[in-house]
Amino acid sequence: MIQNASLPPQFDDAFRARLLELFCWRRDVRRFRGDPLPPRTLERLIEVACLAPSVGLSQPWRFVIVEDARRRQAVLDNFESCNAEALNTYGGDLSVRYAALKLAGLREAPCHLAVFADRQTGTGHGLGRRTMPEMAEYSTVAAVFSLWLAARAEGIGMGWVSILEPVAITAALDLPADWRFIGYFCLGYPQMENDSPELERLGWEQRRPAADSILRR
Amino acid sequence: MIQNASLPPQFDDAFRARLLELFCWRRDVRRFRGDPLPPRTLERLIEVACLAPSVGLSQPWRFVIVEDARRRQAVLDNFESCNAEALNTYGGDLSVRYAALKLAGLREAPCHLAVFADRQTGTGHGLGRRTMPEMAEYSTVAAVFSLWLAARAEGIGMGWVSILEPVAITAALDLPADWRFIGYFCLGYPQMENDSPELERLGWEQRRPAADSILRR
Repeated sequence: MIQNASLPPQFDDAFRARLLELFCWRRDVRRFRGDPLPPRTLERLIEVACLAPSVGLSQPWRFVIVEDARRRQAVLDNFESCNAEALNTYGGDLSVRYAALKLAGLREAPCHLAVFADRQTGTGHGLGRRTMPEMAEYSTVAAVFSLWLAARAEGIGMGWVSILEPVAITAALDLPADWRFIGYFCLGYPQMENDSPELERLGWEQRRPAADSILRR
Repeated sequence: MIQNASLPPQFDDAFRARLLELFCWRRDVRRFRGDPLPPRTLERLIEVACLAPSVGLSQPWRFVIVEDARRRQAVLDNFESCNAEALNTYGGDLSVRYAALKLAGLREAPCHLAVFADRQTGTGHGLGRRTMPEMAEYSTVAAVFSLWLAARAEGIGMGWVSILEPVAITAALDLPADWRFIGYFCLGYPQMENDSPELERLGWEQRRPAADSILRR
């Protein structure tokens, strides 16, 4: 085994307390200020994302920085269509509550990032993907979440838009049809900060105790 | 909009530097010491995992702490069978290199955790999952990765085992057949620490520059 020359870092209680604050204050942001991020910010955050674990070191993540106004408009159109269809699936009080939610910051966010996973990549020689090909997507989500945390640590908000049709978005961005669409992300400075989800504050759903999601076998 | 009473934390350069170290030194660990984690550690880490974002606040993650020796053995048996089949798919030099890899720490790790996503959960009222039902799995991966980072910040290593058949693991653990198997995780104190992937050090694959995974549209 080759030993690394650097000494492993020792994380202390103070760091762990700040890390917990980061987890608590990381939000899905849909209300952005319009001012741009500093130059090269997104590229720098993507470098952090690439430190994420990937199955067999396959690095299947594909980051698509979307700047073209017509492509952004196509994504917004798809969101609005999907969101209108989603609204139609709710009845009564849920319908009223759904209509009042702001579910994306596509119009205001200065940065748009689409993320895909390439299941077909030869990188990693298929290791760990034979029985679970979906590991390509899962690795990519770990990269996305790394980017999200690193962004929040710089005061930058991120919002995950999933009310979209993957096939339509892949086509609108002129990308290979066999890439898996993971999500469309808005980034920018948030209008406000909070340590509770907006969906909870607006009464859509409540957070459950962690114990409710634990089983023993 | 309800404003939160707590003041948002201000993260500084020192914290960001430590966070970057955490991303750099988080490893997929397959070589564990045998000593147990302190009592309640896993439960505490699961509480951190539940701070992750989830689509529509659906909290679809299901954490299964596996302690029963026969169930652990069934998982190990399935891993060994899948790993032998995977080895057969490689020829020549890759076959020799694959056989030399240690791809799981199932025998040594004191803690075993299986994680599933429940696509059918009514929590969140389906918001954000209509066009992308796979968001349940993606939310669960964000929770897994939060747990992983929080563990590493305490000096605890985690390894993701994907060389398993999801249907066999779900059955071995007597869980609902419609839950999606995300991964099987070993946790414990690592025998060594490193800031580069073992698959890279052993010559299986190399890390690529982040720029290679960036496209513009």
